[in-house]
Amino acid sequence: MPKRVDPNNPASKESAPKQNTKTQLIDAGIQIMQEKGYNATGIMEVLQSVGVPKGSFYYYFDSKEDFGLQIINHFDECYTEKLRRYFDDQSLTPLARLRLYCDEGRKSLLEAQCRKGCLIGNLSQEMADQSEVFRSRLEEVMVKWRNYFASCIKEGQEKGEICTKIDTQDLAEFFLSGWEGSVMRAKTTKSPGPQDAFIRVMFEHFLCKKSP
Amino acid sequence: MPKRVDPNNPASKESAPKQNTKTQLIDAGIQIMQEKGYNATGIMEVLQSVGVPKGSFYYYFDSKEDFGLQIINHFDECYTEKLRRYFDDQSLTPLARLRLYCDEGRKSLLEAQCRKGCLIGNLSQEMADQSEVFRSRLEEVMVKWRNYFASCIKEGQEKGEICTKIDTQDLAEFFLSGWEGSVMRAKTTKSPGPQDAFIRVMFEHFLCKKSP
Repeated sequence: MPKRVDPNNPASKESAPKQNTKTQLIDAGIQIMQEKGYNATGIMEVLQSVGVPKGSFYYYFDSKEDFGLQIINHFDECYTEKLRRYFDDQSLTPLARLRLYCDEGRKSLLEAQCRKGCLIGNLSQEMADQSEVFRSRLEEVMVKWRNYFASCIKEGQEKGEICTKIDTQDLAEFFLSGWEGSVMRAKTTKSPGPQDAFIRVMFEHFLCKKSP
Repeated sequence: MPKRVDPNNPASKESAPKQNTKTQLIDAGIQIMQEKGYNATGIMEVLQSVGVPKGSFYYYFDSKEDFGLQIINHFDECYTEKLRRYFDDQSLTPLARLRLYCDEGRKSLLEAQCRKGCLIGNLSQEMADQSEVFRSRLEEVMVKWRNYFASCIKEGQEKGEICTKIDTQDLAEFFLSGWEGSVMRAKTTKSPGPQDAFIRVMFEHFLCKKSP
Protein backbone atom coordinates (compact mmCIF):
# COMPACT_ATOMS: atom_id res chain seq x y z
CA MET A 1 0.00 0.00 0.00
CA PRO A 2 1.57 3.35 -1.03
CA LYS A 3 2.19 5.85 1.70
CA ARG A 4 -0.74 8.25 2.00
CA VAL A 5 -0.01 11.97 1.77
CA ASP A 6 -2.42 14.44 3.32
CA PRO A 7 -3.48 16.64 0.36
CA ASN A 8 -4.58 19.44 2.67
CA ASN A 9 -1.49 19.54 4.78
CA PRO A 10 1.88 19.50 3.00
CA ALA A 11 3.58 19.26 6.38
CA SER A 12 2.11 15.79 6.73
CA LYS A 13 5.08 14.41 4.81
CA GLU A 14 7.25 15.35 7.75
CA SER A 15 7.12 13.10 10.71
CA ALA A 16 6.94 15.57 13.64
CA PRO A 17 4.08 17.82 12.44
CA LYS A 18 2.18 14.74 11.26
CA GLN A 19 2.41 13.23 14.73
CA ASN A 20 1.49 16.59 16.17
CA THR A 21 -1.72 16.90 14.11
CA LYS A 22 -2.64 13.29 14.80
CA THR A 23 -2.10 13.79 18.53
CA GLN A 24 -4.17 16.98 18.44
CA LEU A 25 -7.02 15.12 16.75
CA ILE A 26 -6.84 12.30 19.28
CA ASP A 27 -6.73 14.72 22.22
CA ALA A 28 -9.71 16.65 20.85
CA GLY A 29 -11.51 13.37 20.18
CA ILE A 30 -10.99 12.28 23.80
CA GLN A 31 -12.48 15.54 25.11
CA ILE A 32 -15.53 15.39 22.84
CA MET A 33 -16.10 11.63 23.02
CA GLN A 34 -15.80 11.58 26.80
CA GLU A 35 -18.74 13.96 27.02
CA LYS A 36 -20.87 12.91 24.03
CA GLY A 37 -20.02 9.25 23.53
CA TYR A 38 -18.96 7.56 20.29
CA ASN A 39 -22.11 7.77 18.20
CA ALA A 40 -22.87 11.43 18.91
CA THR A 41 -19.29 12.58 18.19
CA GLY A 42 -19.02 14.05 14.72
CA ILE A 43 -15.72 13.88 12.85
CA MET A 44 -16.31 17.43 11.55
CA GLU A 45 -16.63 18.74 15.10
CA VAL A 46 -13.31 17.14 16.02
CA LEU A 47 -11.56 18.51 12.92
CA GLN A 48 -12.99 21.99 13.41
CA SER A 49 -11.97 22.08 17.06
CA VAL A 50 -8.31 21.79 16.08
CA GLY A 51 -8.56 23.68 12.76
CA VAL A 52 -7.62 20.73 10.57
CA PRO A 53 -9.21 20.55 7.08
CA LYS A 54 -11.88 17.94 6.42
CA GLY A 55 -9.89 15.96 3.87
CA SER A 56 -7.13 15.24 6.37
CA PHE A 57 -9.05 12.85 8.60
CA TYR A 58 -8.60 9.78 6.40
CA TYR A 59 -4.92 10.49 6.08
CA TYR A 60 -4.54 9.89 9.79
CA PHE A 61 -7.29 7.35 10.43
CA ASP A 62 -8.82 4.51 8.38
CA SER A 63 -12.33 5.14 9.67
CA LYS A 64 -14.30 6.54 12.59
CA GLU A 65 -13.91 3.12 14.23
CA ASP A 66 -10.12 3.31 13.84
CA PHE A 67 -10.23 6.83 15.33
CA GLY A 68 -12.27 5.55 18.28
CA LEU A 69 -9.87 2.66 18.89
CA GLN A 70 -6.82 4.95 18.69
CA ILE A 71 -8.51 7.25 21.20
CA ILE A 72 -8.95 4.29 23.56
CA ASN A 73 -5.30 3.30 23.05
CA HIS A 74 -4.02 6.80 23.76
CA PHE A 75 -6.25 7.20 26.80
CA ASP A 76 -5.11 3.79 28.03
CA GLU A 77 -1.41 4.78 27.72
CA CYS A 78 -1.91 8.03 29.64
CA TYR A 79 -4.10 6.41 32.29
CA THR A 80 -1.63 3.57 32.80
CA GLU A 81 1.05 6.15 33.64
CA LYS A 82 -1.31 7.60 36.24
CA LEU A 83 -2.05 4.16 37.68
CA ARG A 84 1.69 3.46 37.93
CA ARG A 85 2.20 6.71 39.84
CA TYR A 86 -0.47 5.74 42.37
CA PHE A 87 0.08 2.01 42.70
CA ASP A 88 3.86 1.80 42.42
CA ASP A 89 4.30 4.39 45.17
CA GLN A 90 5.91 2.35 47.93
CA SER A 91 5.87 5.33 50.31
CA LEU A 92 2.11 4.75 50.69
CA THR A 93 0.41 1.76 52.28
CA PRO A 94 -1.80 -0.32 49.91
CA LEU A 95 -4.97 1.15 51.42
CA ALA A 96 -3.57 4.69 51.06
CA ARG A 97 -2.84 4.00 47.37
CA LEU A 98 -6.43 2.88 46.74
CA ARG A 99 -7.66 5.92 48.64
CA LEU A 100 -5.41 8.26 46.61
CA TYR A 101 -6.84 6.74 43.42
CA CYS A 102 -10.40 7.51 44.56
CA ASP A 103 -9.59 10.98 45.92
CA GLU A 104 -7.86 11.99 42.68
CA GLY A 105 -10.73 10.58 40.60
CA ARG A 106 -13.23 12.54 42.70
CA LYS A 107 -11.13 15.69 42.27
CA SER A 108 -11.02 15.29 38.48
CA LEU A 109 -14.77 14.80 38.29
CA LEU A 110 -15.37 17.90 40.43
CA GLU A 111 -13.02 19.92 38.20
CA ALA A 112 -15.17 18.85 35.25
CA GLN A 113 -18.38 19.91 37.10
CA CYS A 114 -19.35 16.23 37.32
CA ARG A 115 -19.46 16.00 33.53
CA LYS A 116 -17.70 13.54 31.19
CA GLY A 117 -17.06 10.83 33.78
CA CYS A 118 -14.88 7.90 32.72
CA LEU A 119 -14.21 7.54 28.97
CA ILE A 120 -13.71 3.77 29.25
CA GLY A 121 -16.86 3.33 31.37
CA ASN A 122 -18.90 5.52 29.02
CA LEU A 123 -17.75 3.68 25.89
CA SER A 124 -18.27 0.30 27.60
CA GLN A 125 -21.85 1.19 28.40
CA GLU A 126 -22.47 2.53 24.89
CA MET A 127 -20.47 0.17 22.67
CA ALA A 128 -20.25 -3.23 24.41
CA ASP A 129 -23.29 -4.51 22.49
CA GLN A 130 -22.57 -2.59 19.30
CA SER A 131 -19.05 -3.59 18.37
CA GLU A 132 -17.08 -6.67 19.35
CA VAL A 133 -13.85 -4.83 18.43
CA PHE A 134 -14.63 -2.06 20.91
CA ARG A 135 -15.97 -4.44 23.55
CA SER A 136 -12.86 -6.62 23.61
CA ARG A 137 -10.49 -3.64 23.66
CA LEU A 138 -12.48 -1.93 26.46
CA GLU A 139 -12.49 -5.19 28.42
CA GLU A 140 -8.68 -5.40 28.09
CA VAL A 141 -8.34 -1.93 29.56
CA MET A 142 -10.75 -2.64 32.43
CA VAL A 143 -8.98 -5.93 33.23
CA LYS A 144 -5.68 -4.05 33.39
CA TRP A 145 -7.20 -1.63 35.92
CA ARG A 146 -8.67 -4.50 37.92
CA ASN A 147 -5.24 -6.14 38.01
CA TYR A 148 -3.74 -2.98 39.52
CA PHE A 149 -6.46 -3.00 42.19
CA ALA A 150 -6.04 -6.74 42.80
CA SER A 151 -2.25 -6.48 43.29
CA CYS A 152 -2.71 -3.60 45.70
CA ILE A 153 -5.50 -5.37 47.64
CA LYS A 154 -3.40 -8.56 47.80
CA GLU A 155 -0.44 -6.63 49.23
CA GLY A 156 -2.81 -5.00 51.75
CA GLN A 157 -4.19 -8.39 52.73
CA GLU A 158 -0.69 -9.86 53.11
CA LYS A 159 0.39 -6.91 55.24
CA GLY A 160 -2.72 -7.25 57.45
CA GLU A 161 -4.12 -3.90 56.35
CA ILE A 162 -7.10 -5.18 54.31
CA CYS A 163 -9.65 -7.81 55.38
CA THR A 164 -8.55 -11.28 54.21
CA LYS A 165 -11.94 -12.97 54.41
CA ILE A 166 -12.91 -11.77 50.95
CA ASP A 167 -11.38 -13.23 47.80
CA THR A 168 -8.88 -10.77 46.29
CA GLN A 169 -10.25 -11.00 42.74
CA ASP A 170 -13.85 -10.59 43.95
CA LEU A 171 -12.85 -7.53 45.93
CA ALA A 172 -10.94 -6.04 42.98
CA GLU A 173 -13.90 -6.50 40.60
CA PHE A 174 -16.26 -5.14 43.28
CA PHE A 175 -13.99 -2.10 43.71
CA LEU A 176 -13.82 -1.51 39.94
CA SER A 177 -17.53 -1.88 39.24
CA GLY A 178 -18.54 0.04 42.37
CA TRP A 179 -16.26 2.92 41.46
CA GLU A 180 -17.41 2.98 37.83
CA GLY A 181 -21.02 2.92 39.01
CA SER A 182 -20.39 5.82 41.38
CA VAL A 183 -18.85 7.88 38.54
CA MET A 184 -21.92 7.24 36.39
CA ARG A 185 -24.21 8.19 39.28
CA ALA A 186 -22.21 11.37 39.97
CA LYS A 187 -22.70 12.39 36.32
CA THR A 188 -26.45 11.87 36.74
CA THR A 189 -26.81 13.63 40.08
CA LYS A 190 -24.29 16.29 38.99
CA SER A 191 -22.75 16.06 42.45
CA PRO A 192 -19.91 14.01 43.97
CA GLY A 193 -22.37 12.49 46.50
CA PRO A 194 -22.32 8.96 45.04
CA GLN A 195 -18.50 8.95 45.01
CA ASP A 196 -18.44 10.24 48.60
CA ALA A 197 -20.79 7.41 49.61
CA PHE A 198 -18.52 4.90 47.82
CA ILE A 199 -15.39 6.29 49.51
CA ARG A 200 -16.99 6.42 52.97
CA VAL A 201 -18.46 2.92 52.80
CA MET A 202 -15.35 1.33 51.28
CA PHE A 203 -12.69 3.00 53.39
CA GLU A 204 -14.39 3.71 56.72
CA HIS A 205 -16.35 0.49 57.00
CA PHE A 206 -15.33 -2.08 54.53
CA LEU A 207 -11.76 -2.35 53.31
CA CYS A 208 -10.62 -1.22 56.76
CA LYS A 209 -9.82 -4.36 58.79
CA LYS A 210 -11.54 -3.34 61.99
CA SER A 211 -15.05 -2.91 60.50
CA PRO A 212 -17.97 -3.21 60.22
CA MET B 1 -54.45 22.91 19.53
CA PRO B 2 -56.62 20.72 17.21
CA LYS B 3 -56.48 16.99 17.78
CA ARG B 4 -53.98 15.36 15.45
CA VAL B 5 -55.21 12.53 13.25
CA ASP B 6 -52.74 9.97 11.99
CA PRO B 7 -53.09 10.22 8.17
CA ASN B 8 -51.56 6.77 7.68
CA ASN B 9 -53.69 4.95 10.20
CA PRO B 10 -57.46 5.55 10.15
CA ALA B 11 -57.78 3.47 13.31
CA SER B 12 -55.90 6.20 15.12
CA LYS B 13 -59.16 8.05 15.63
CA GLU B 14 -60.29 5.25 17.88
CA SER B 15 -58.84 5.21 21.34
CA ALA B 16 -57.98 1.52 21.85
CA PRO B 17 -56.05 0.86 18.60
CA LYS B 18 -54.30 4.22 19.01
CA GLN B 19 -53.12 3.24 22.48
CA ASN B 20 -52.16 -0.15 21.13
CA THR B 21 -49.95 1.28 18.36
CA LYS B 22 -48.39 3.79 20.74
CA THR B 23 -47.65 1.05 23.27
CA GLN B 24 -46.17 -1.12 20.51
CA LEU B 25 -43.88 1.73 19.47
CA ILE B 26 -42.81 2.35 23.05
CA ASP B 27 -42.18 -1.36 23.68
CA ALA B 28 -40.13 -1.64 20.49
CA GLY B 29 -38.29 1.56 21.42
CA ILE B 30 -37.36 0.12 24.81
CA GLN B 31 -35.93 -3.05 23.21
CA ILE B 32 -33.88 -1.15 20.63
CA MET B 33 -32.81 1.74 22.87
CA GLN B 34 -31.76 -0.58 25.68
CA GLU B 35 -29.26 -2.21 23.34
CA LYS B 36 -28.20 0.72 21.14
CA GLY B 37 -28.69 3.77 23.32
CA TYR B 38 -30.60 6.93 22.45
CA ASN B 39 -28.42 8.46 19.75
CA ALA B 40 -27.95 5.27 17.73
CA THR B 41 -31.66 4.36 17.76
CA GLY B 42 -33.32 5.34 14.50
CA ILE B 43 -37.01 6.21 14.42
CA MET B 44 -37.35 4.32 11.13
CA GLU B 45 -36.00 1.15 12.72
CA VAL B 46 -38.55 1.41 15.52
CA LEU B 47 -41.43 2.04 13.09
CA GLN B 48 -40.37 -0.80 10.79
CA SER B 49 -40.05 -3.25 13.68
CA VAL B 50 -43.75 -2.89 14.44
CA GLY B 51 -44.94 -2.28 10.85
CA VAL B 52 -46.20 1.25 11.45
CA PRO B 53 -45.91 3.74 8.54
CA LYS B 54 -43.35 6.52 8.74
CA GLY B 55 -45.84 9.38 8.85
CA SER B 56 -47.43 8.03 12.04
CA PHE B 57 -44.55 8.78 14.40
CA TYR B 58 -45.35 12.45 14.89
CA TYR B 59 -48.98 11.63 15.53
CA TYR B 60 -47.94 9.76 18.64
CA PHE B 61 -44.84 11.72 19.70
CA ASP B 62 -43.82 15.36 19.46
CA SER B 63 -40.17 14.53 18.76
CA LYS B 64 -37.51 11.89 19.28
CA GLU B 65 -36.86 13.49 22.68
CA ASP B 66 -40.54 13.10 23.60
CA PHE B 67 -40.36 9.45 22.45
CA GLY B 68 -37.27 8.90 24.62
CA LEU B 69 -38.92 10.46 27.66
CA GLN B 70 -42.11 8.43 27.18
CA ILE B 71 -39.93 5.31 26.94
CA ILE B 72 -38.35 6.21 30.28
CA ASN B 73 -41.79 6.84 31.81
CA HIS B 74 -43.17 3.52 30.60
CA PHE B 75 -40.07 1.62 31.72
CA ASP B 76 -40.28 3.37 35.09
CA GLU B 77 -43.94 2.33 35.56
CA CYS B 78 -43.22 -1.34 34.74
CA TYR B 79 -40.05 -1.42 36.84
CA THR B 80 -41.80 0.17 39.81
CA GLU B 81 -44.34 -2.68 39.76
CA LYS B 82 -41.42 -5.12 39.88
CA LEU B 83 -39.78 -3.25 42.76
CA ARG B 84 -43.08 -3.31 44.67
CA ARG B 85 -43.32 -7.09 44.21
CA TYR B 86 -39.82 -7.55 45.64
CA PHE B 87 -39.73 -4.92 48.35
CA ASP B 88 -43.32 -5.07 49.62
CA ASP B 89 -43.11 -8.83 50.13
CA GLN B 90 -43.36 -9.14 53.90
CA SER B 91 -42.88 -12.91 53.74
CA LEU B 92 -39.18 -12.22 53.04
CA THR B 93 -36.65 -10.66 55.41
CA PRO B 94 -35.18 -7.31 54.25
CA LEU B 95 -31.88 -9.00 53.30
CA ALA B 96 -33.76 -11.70 51.36
CA ARG B 97 -35.64 -8.98 49.43
CA LEU B 98 -32.39 -7.27 48.42
CA ARG B 99 -30.98 -10.66 47.46
CA LEU B 100 -34.05 -11.51 45.38
CA TYR B 101 -33.67 -8.17 43.56
CA CYS B 102 -30.06 -9.04 42.64
CA ASP B 103 -30.77 -12.67 41.75
CA GLU B 104 -33.63 -11.68 39.44
CA GLY B 105 -31.52 -8.95 37.84
CA ARG B 106 -28.70 -11.45 37.23
CA LYS B 107 -31.20 -13.92 35.73
CA SER B 108 -32.58 -11.26 33.34
CA LEU B 109 -29.11 -10.31 32.19
CA LEU B 110 -28.18 -13.95 31.59
CA GLU B 111 -31.40 -14.46 29.58
CA ALA B 112 -30.31 -11.53 27.41
CA GLN B 113 -26.82 -13.08 26.94
CA CYS B 114 -25.37 -10.23 29.01
CA ARG B 115 -26.57 -7.72 26.44
CA LYS B 116 -28.71 -4.59 26.93
CA GLY B 117 -28.05 -4.14 30.65
CA CYS B 118 -30.08 -1.49 32.45
CA LEU B 119 -31.97 1.02 30.26
CA ILE B 120 -31.86 3.71 32.95
CA GLY B 121 -28.14 3.16 33.62
CA ASN B 122 -27.35 3.15 29.89
CA LEU B 123 -29.27 6.36 29.23
CA SER B 124 -27.77 8.01 32.32
CA GLN B 125 -24.28 7.26 31.08
CA GLU B 126 -25.09 8.47 27.56
CA MET B 127 -27.43 11.42 28.15
CA ALA B 128 -26.59 12.96 31.55
CA ASP B 129 -24.28 15.53 29.92
CA GLN B 130 -26.31 15.90 26.72
CA SER B 131 -29.77 16.81 27.93
CA GLU B 132 -30.89 18.36 31.20
CA VAL B 133 -34.43 17.09 30.55
CA PHE B 134 -33.17 13.50 30.32
CA ARG B 135 -30.72 13.89 33.20
CA SER B 136 -33.30 15.17 35.66
CA ARG B 137 -35.86 12.52 34.68
CA LEU B 138 -33.26 9.71 34.92
CA GLU B 139 -32.15 11.04 38.30
CA GLU B 140 -35.78 10.93 39.54
CA VAL B 141 -36.02 7.28 38.55
CA MET B 142 -32.70 6.38 40.19
CA VAL B 143 -33.62 8.22 43.39
CA LYS B 144 -36.88 6.25 43.49
CA TRP B 145 -34.88 2.99 43.27
CA ARG B 146 -32.46 4.19 45.92
CA ASN B 147 -35.40 4.97 48.21
CA TYR B 148 -36.67 1.39 47.84
CA PHE B 149 -33.21 0.11 48.79
CA ALA B 150 -32.92 2.58 51.68
CA SER B 151 -36.29 1.61 53.18
CA CYS B 152 -35.39 -2.05 52.96
CA ILE B 153 -31.90 -1.51 54.45
CA LYS B 154 -33.38 0.61 57.25
CA GLU B 155 -35.87 -2.14 58.10
CA GLY B 156 -33.01 -4.68 58.07
CA GLN B 157 -30.94 -2.46 60.35
CA GLU B 158 -33.87 -1.99 62.75
CA LYS B 159 -34.49 -5.73 62.82
CA GLY B 160 -30.81 -6.43 63.51
CA GLU B 161 -30.29 -8.19 60.17
CA ILE B 162 -28.09 -5.57 58.49
CA CYS B 163 -25.01 -3.86 59.94
CA THR B 164 -26.01 -0.58 61.64
CA LYS B 165 -22.57 1.03 61.64
CA ILE B 166 -23.04 2.36 58.12
CA ASP B 167 -25.38 5.25 57.34
CA THR B 168 -28.55 3.95 55.63
CA GLN B 169 -28.48 6.47 52.79
CA ASP B 170 -24.78 5.86 52.11
CA LEU B 171 -25.40 2.14 51.99
CA ALA B 172 -28.40 2.55 49.66
CA GLU B 173 -26.41 4.75 47.23
CA PHE B 174 -23.46 2.34 47.46
CA PHE B 175 -25.80 -0.59 46.68
CA LEU B 176 -27.35 1.26 43.72
CA SER B 177 -24.11 2.46 42.16
CA GLY B 178 -22.32 -0.84 42.82
CA TRP B 179 -25.12 -2.82 41.20
CA GLU B 180 -25.32 -0.48 38.21
CA GLY B 181 -21.55 -0.70 37.81
CA SER B 182 -21.67 -4.50 37.92
CA VAL B 183 -24.35 -4.55 35.20
CA MET B 184 -22.18 -2.34 32.99
CA ARG B 185 -19.15 -4.57 33.65
CA ALA B 186 -21.18 -7.72 32.88
CA LYS B 187 -22.12 -6.21 29.50
CA THR B 188 -18.44 -5.58 28.81
CA THR B 189 -17.14 -8.97 29.96
CA LYS B 190 -20.20 -10.69 28.43
CA SER B 191 -20.38 -12.83 31.56
CA PRO B 192 -22.24 -12.52 34.87
CA GLY B 193 -18.89 -12.60 36.75
CA PRO B 194 -19.01 -8.95 37.92
CA GLN B 195 -22.56 -9.41 39.22
CA ASP B 196 -21.52 -12.62 40.99
CA ALA B 197 -18.63 -10.75 42.63
CA PHE B 198 -21.03 -7.97 43.71
CA ILE B 199 -23.53 -10.49 45.14
CA ARG B 200 -20.85 -12.52 46.94
CA VAL B 201 -19.10 -9.51 48.47
CA MET B 202 -22.32 -7.71 49.44
CA PHE B 203 -24.26 -10.65 50.85
CA GLU B 204 -21.61 -13.03 52.17
CA HIS B 205 -19.30 -10.45 53.66
CA PHE B 206 -20.78 -7.05 53.85
CA LEU B 207 -24.49 -6.56 54.41
CA CYS B 208 -24.45 -9.69 56.54
CA LYS B 209 -24.10 -8.62 60.18
CA LYS B 210 -21.51 -11.18 61.21
CA SER B 211 -18.83 -10.19 58.66
CA PRO B 212 -16.19 -9.49 57.65
